[in-house]
Amino acid sequence: MARANTDNRPMTTPTTQDLLERRARLLGAGIATFYDDPVHIVRGEGVWLFDADGRRYLDLYNNVPCVGHAHPRVVEAMQQQTETLNVHSRYLHEGILDYAEHLTSLHADHLTTAVFTCSGTEANEVAILMARAATEGRGLIYTQAAYHGNSTEVRKLSRLRGDGDREFRSIPVPQRYRPIGDGLDDEALTETYLARLRAEIDGFAEDGVPFAGMMVCSILANEGLPDIPPGFMARAAEMVREAGGLFICDEVQAGFARSGNWWGYETSGVTPDIVSMGKPMGNGLPLAGVVASRELVETFRDKTRYFNTFASSPLQAAVGEAVLGVIEDERLVESVADVGGYLIDNLRALQEGCEPMSDVRGHGLFIGMEWVTDRDSKSPDPDGADVIVNRLRRAGFLMGRAGEFGNVLKVRPPLVLMREQADMFLEAFEAAIAEPV
Amino acid sequence: MARANTDNRPMTTPTTQDLLERRARLLGAGIATFYDDPVHIVRGEGVWLFDADGRRYLDLYNNVPCVGHAHPRVVEAMQQQTETLNVHSRYLHEGILDYAEHLTSLHADHLTTAVFTCSGTEANEVAILMARAATEGRGLIYTQAAYHGNSTEVRKLSRLRGDGDREFRSIPVPQRYRPIGDGLDDEALTETYLARLRAEIDGFAEDGVPFAGMMVCSILANEGLPDIPPGFMARAAEMVREAGGLFICDEVQAGFARSGNWWGYETSGVTPDIVSMGKPMGNGLPLAGVVASRELVETFRDKTRYFNTFASSPLQAAVGEAVLGVIEDERLVESVADVGGYLIDNLRALQEGCEPMSDVRGHGLFIGMEWVTDRDSKSPDPDGADVIVNRLRRAGFLMGRAGEFGNVLKVRPPLVLMREQADMFLEAFEAAIAEPV
Repeated sequence: MARANTDNRPMTTPTTQDLLERRARLLGAGIATFYDDPVHIVRGEGVWLFDADGRRYLDLYNNVPCVGHAHPRVVEAMQQQTETLNVHSRYLHEGILDYAEHLTSLHADHLTTAVFTCSGTEANEVAILMARAATEGRGLIYTQAAYHGNSTEVRKLSRLRGDGDREFRSIPVPQRYRPIGDGLDDEALTETYLARLRAEIDGFAEDGVPFAGMMVCSILANEGLPDIPPGFMARAAEMVREAGGLFICDEVQAGFARSGNWWGYETSGVTPDIVSMGKPMGNGLPLAGVVASRELVETFRDKTRYFNTFASSPLQAAVGEAVLGVIEDERLVESVADVGGYLIDNLRALQEGCEPMSDVRGHGLFIGMEWVTDRDSKSPDPDGADVIVNRLRRAGFLMGRAGEFGNVLKVRPPLVLMREQADMFLEAFEAAIAEPV
Repeated sequence: MARANTDNRPMTTPTTQDLLERRARLLGAGIATFYDDPVHIVRGEGVWLFDADGRRYLDLYNNVPCVGHAHPRVVEAMQQQTETLNVHSRYLHEGILDYAEHLTSLHADHLTTAVFTCSGTEANEVAILMARAATEGRGLIYTQAAYHGNSTEVRKLSRLRGDGDREFRSIPVPQRYRPIGDGLDDEALTETYLARLRAEIDGFAEDGVPFAGMMVCSILANEGLPDIPPGFMARAAEMVREAGGLFICDEVQAGFARSGNWWGYETSGVTPDIVSMGKPMGNGLPLAGVVASRELVETFRDKTRYFNTFASSPLQAAVGEAVLGVIEDERLVESVADVGGYLIDNLRALQEGCEPMSDVRGHGLFIGMEWVTDRDSKSPDPDGADVIVNRLRRAGFLMGRAGEFGNVLKVRPPLVLMREQADMFLEAFEAAIAEPV
């Protein structure tokens, strides 16, 4: 959750003040910064960020530089390709084919063919166009606290923008912590959420809107990483397909080892028809895309004649390939599962003495912690969570917030975070939650 | 105009055949290549491209690597920034502010504030969101042969997709070569096109669709670079503003010295409210954006809370700044005007002996040549134009086609093309048009 800094800002250096004023003038007031006292970052290396005063911060936030800030292998790939060739995809080039071959080999068997784009928003645009092209439907279902991108169409896949558009319908966030029914066992809870999905599918039919499918982040990242009622995802996909729709997993946040598996859809036990990817894919180079069956991709290409100037370029291919290479060679899937498990165990141990931290959950190096006014009411306390985030920022640890109410503390470091760095964070976190907020 | 290669393909090397098959499997059949015999490019330098057999081609097509393929200053900027820092824009960083300051200083005085994105499509998404946010209108007008991008909403700004959507209306391409009225003098022709614009604005009012504005490429690039009836652009902008709309210039192709001025809107004599930019902006790094008044940008930010993960990054800033630096230090605005003028004069001299080449026009290093069956009927001959394009490809010169009918030969080299290279092209072009098609 970004927060504009407008008032009650602690003393800032003249430089920070000057930068904030220049930002407002050149980029417009309303461009958000993180933290009450925004950080002026000038250098990054691995899991570390350094500010203009030379102060070091442990990066517990950034998922885009997934293999670490300024990873030498990524830097070298970018350098070599940039000085050799970077053109569009209407010439033949082996780089993008090698990369597509590698990337699709990491996915479920039927996901054989790729469409590349520059951003997650563009990938989700492709996914929507593809689902609609293949089904000849229009109606799309999403979860209420989702965020899938910033374009006019993709924005509608979120509660605030989609309401009132007859082609978009939402379901509540499927979860155990704040379930829609009281006292339900797991199976009954799953059924309850599936019934909500059923109702929305039926709603499209009643409105005469042909159904195209459902898009969901496979680990519900923006929703605050809730524990998903068991079997929900797989059964939802089945229900969507039975109704003639396609099941789209947004792996923009969940993908590329983040959850301790290559893909979030493995973690949540579902097989998607279409997968969109983004953020970590190029370690910061704009690189995103979609994989699906060859049939779906060809129907999409045939009906849309899609072309993307900067995508499928030799540069995207070289950098994307370097990222895959690092994840494999540094065994980051295994490392993420290990360090993530270690972190979550230790954070859960800290829960006992900390009443507001009412739920600790997540997958791999993506952990969410509910911050509430009290455990009985589960009333979200986003302001309290913000106090913790800012205390940690002052202590040299950068994290963020997520969730439907902005009250979920979010730990999502580069994948290369090691146990010793996790220990440094745990110590600082323990200190930060020791005082009342 | 891209063309899928399906039949009548000349003998190809096994490598080309293998690459085409891998493309179909990994990227889906329907991903287009250029030329009957697609080119397998492996290296670029300045205005030259090299294929896998070491053969050299003069690049008369590519506008994205605007300061030339693999320009050392761009390569170095990318290298230095990648190994230093590349993060999102919610921290403070001076790079993007310095770049925004430089970029806006090159625009008309009221265009003071920037929004950065990754692609031209995303820039046009921002432009549309901005126009609608500021006007609280919805209706948008475009020219019939336009292409502004690949997203669901931006696709509607083209004849094939926009028809049938009540929020999108089109006007014919304003031009002198195939005017909508016969025997009109310039003033009458301008009036005739303005009347069409008036009719569409009135159409929105009749439909109860509040008007948001008009988007147009400032030099009508995809439309085939027609000579625009004098005064049309400026008077169209005035008419749009009087009706409560905003006038958006798409500079994705026209901008960054292409037309012999910094911006196409200078060339066509109009002052836009919103400017979108893309392709050449990062010399191949995905970098695009919008400039407008601070008030428009802030209304947009306030109403949309727009955030773009990869945009406004230190990497985009460093590379964008390097591109501006090269254009200035190598005096490319002046050079483009000079070499472009030299090219167009010599191409016009070749018209006399070449009946099908019925009109030669353009701005700076962006030249279009109508290819027709005969000059009286002006009947477009896209197949004939394609023969010329493929002859030149075989001779080692890469160009393309554009226009409403795909019959306009398109010359649009990197901005660094010099007179001696223009001479090489002119000689090859003369030979290519000497034989009948």
